Amino acid sequence: MKAIEWLGDRVRILDQTRLPQEEVYLELSRYQDIASAIRKLKIRGAPAIGVAGAYGIALGALKIKAKSREEFQEKLRAISQTIADTRPTARNLFRAIDRMLKVAEAGGDIDQIKAALVNEAIKIHTEEAEATTKLSQLGAELIEDSFAVLTHCNTGALATAGYGTALGVIKKAWEQGKKLRVLVTETRPLLQGARITAWELKRAGIPFTLITDSMAGYFMSRGEVDCVIVGADRIASNGDTANKIGTYTLAVLAKEHSIPFYVAAPTTTIDLTLASGAQIPIEQRSPEEVTRIQGVSIAPEGVNAQNPAFDITPHQYITAIITERGIIKEPYGEGIIRIGGRG
Amino acid sequence: MKAIEWLGDRVRILDQTRLPQEEVYLELSRYQDIASAIRKLKIRGAPAIGVAGAYGIALGALKIKAKSREEFQEKLRAISQTIADTRPTARNLFRAIDRMLKVAEAGGDIDQIKAALVNEAIKIHTEEAEATTKLSQLGAELIEDSFAVLTHCNTGALATAGYGTALGVIKKAWEQGKKLRVLVTETRPLLQGARITAWELKRAGIPFTLITDSMAGYFMSRGEVDCVIVGADRIASNGDTANKIGTYTLAVLAKEHSIPFYVAAPTTTIDLTLASGAQIPIEQRSPEEVTRIQGVSIAPEGVNAQNPAFDITPHQYITAIITERGIIKEPYGEGIIRIGGRG
Repeated sequence: MKAIEWLGDRVRILDQTRLPQEEVYLELSRYQDIASAIRKLKIRGAPAIGVAGAYGIALGALKIKAKSREEFQEKLRAISQTIADTRPTARNLFRAIDRMLKVAEAGGDIDQIKAALVNEAIKIHTEEAEATTKLSQLGAELIEDSFAVLTHCNTGALATAGYGTALGVIKKAWEQGKKLRVLVTETRPLLQGARITAWELKRAGIPFTLITDSMAGYFMSRGEVDCVIVGADRIASNGDTANKIGTYTLAVLAKEHSIPFYVAAPTTTIDLTLASGAQIPIEQRSPEEVTRIQGVSIAPEGVNAQNPAFDITPHQYITAIITERGIIKEPYGEGIIRIGGRG
Repeated sequence: MKAIEWLGDRVRILDQTRLPQEEVYLELSRYQDIASAIRKLKIRGAPAIGVAGAYGIALGALKIKAKSREEFQEKLRAISQTIADTRPTARNLFRAIDRMLKVAEAGGDIDQIKAALVNEAIKIHTEEAEATTKLSQLGAELIEDSFAVLTHCNTGALATAGYGTALGVIKKAWEQGKKLRVLVTETRPLLQGARITAWELKRAGIPFTLITDSMAGYFMSRGEVDCVIVGADRIASNGDTANKIGTYTLAVLAKEHSIPFYVAAPTTTIDLTLASGAQIPIEQRSPEEVTRIQGVSIAPEGVNAQNPAFDITPHQYITAIITERGIIKEPYGEGIIRIGGRG
């Protein structure tokens, strides 16, 4: 099972909107189809959409017909803009796009640039996958035997096109023989916890209990949560973290119950250009994702709903940020600058 | 639109599980059907199930064939037990049952007792309705003009067989001409906010925005919530409050953001026999309510889920408890004993 796979002239993705009912793979050869798949969350998770974006640019580049390098560059920038316009929050996407555009500016003729772009996309994929394996190993040290771990959204293989971030840490601790109990929040509105994390954990044979987002406080108050671990979509240079809506609430609850709250992310999620979380753009998605669940209307017709897809957890609530280059704690500013400088 | 209506030999209820898609009224003449309607949440909300329970006992009593008062009492106790076994958390139900059994123990022949039981059920209904109107008036004083009020679950006319508790306070403030913005949490798993509160607010013409439970923290952190107001299913004598799952999380968030957190409930919700919330029984409902939404499966087949229907908010998180006999603040122990002694 792979979230995304490069097939030379096309990309194969698992359509995550159809999980867990159906395992449907899509083969996409147009960059517009990659953009649409990202926008519609057929592929999602910050590291995975970075990889998908890079492959999208590579696919677009392969089809460019241009008489000059200038014309090629211009068309490539338009393609990159389409990819960039899909979703605003995940840092990994913009970092991947920057890397691709930089490669295109290096020397060589058009065919050489096309080949270099394909290679760069594959390299981004490989590096992201390796980073998640490494950070999962480092993070697993924080998970003690018999821990009850609460996690939110989906941060496993499907979210990362690799081993996973928060869910990678959980899987690694489990592989180390630690007996864990995992509490999975369903993660409304799009239910990535109930649909995708539950699916991944079931396949991995790791025992878990599914709960609604509103139940986290109940289980914490009863002493049934030893730590919380989540992924990230963008981390500002002070450690403030954007992640799936509901994350901030879990962080406040964890603080109130003196429960460690961990963020796991590759350094590609870090955005050194932003001083704090206040500057991170929050994607506002369609209200229909709130008023309808899998096509079924759950509210009166025509009601007003809001759908921010992410929230910001200020760094004060975060016990540690787990990256492939090490585990950072307060003061985050120093730690992030030390390890977060990857290009 | 009435949640429940006594029709002499039967009871008419609005089936709240079918809202908002359909307005279906059921006429029930057997106490077993009332018990089933309570268990299945066709009628729900602590005050409303107290009223429904009383009517259920009255219906059961009318059909008892007994040769002696002793036989009548025995059959009535069995009926009451069936009603009591429906749902364990709401105090109002047990208080209503106690009142009905007490009436049955007074003098008179069997026909007189039957008439007295019907009268008592109607009286319970009238008193609960009046209490919610009164507490809504008192509570509305706490709601300032232009407030953004966040509420959870459904606590309006349908939950109370009267005017409402938390939603009653909101409606009353609105009727007083205060311009409010209401944030309605959908209230997973059974979506009473999205289905029923949205339906009631829409009918009342009060503007509101529907959000998922996981979004409350986001809106609080942006300064978009001026107060939180919820109902209650049982209040212990120290002020600890059981209410719909997710309430405790909202209370923790409100405290973190220095936002007032109000509980609105008639004094029939107060349980002076319990020293603290730790003694309040929490109903555990079917995991299927988590894994399926309106019949649609949202998780892999066979996953383990938990479904506590309520949580406990310790009194330290509660800014004030609004009752028909006055608004109580810390120290709750004294205030509750002062006003909570209603039989």
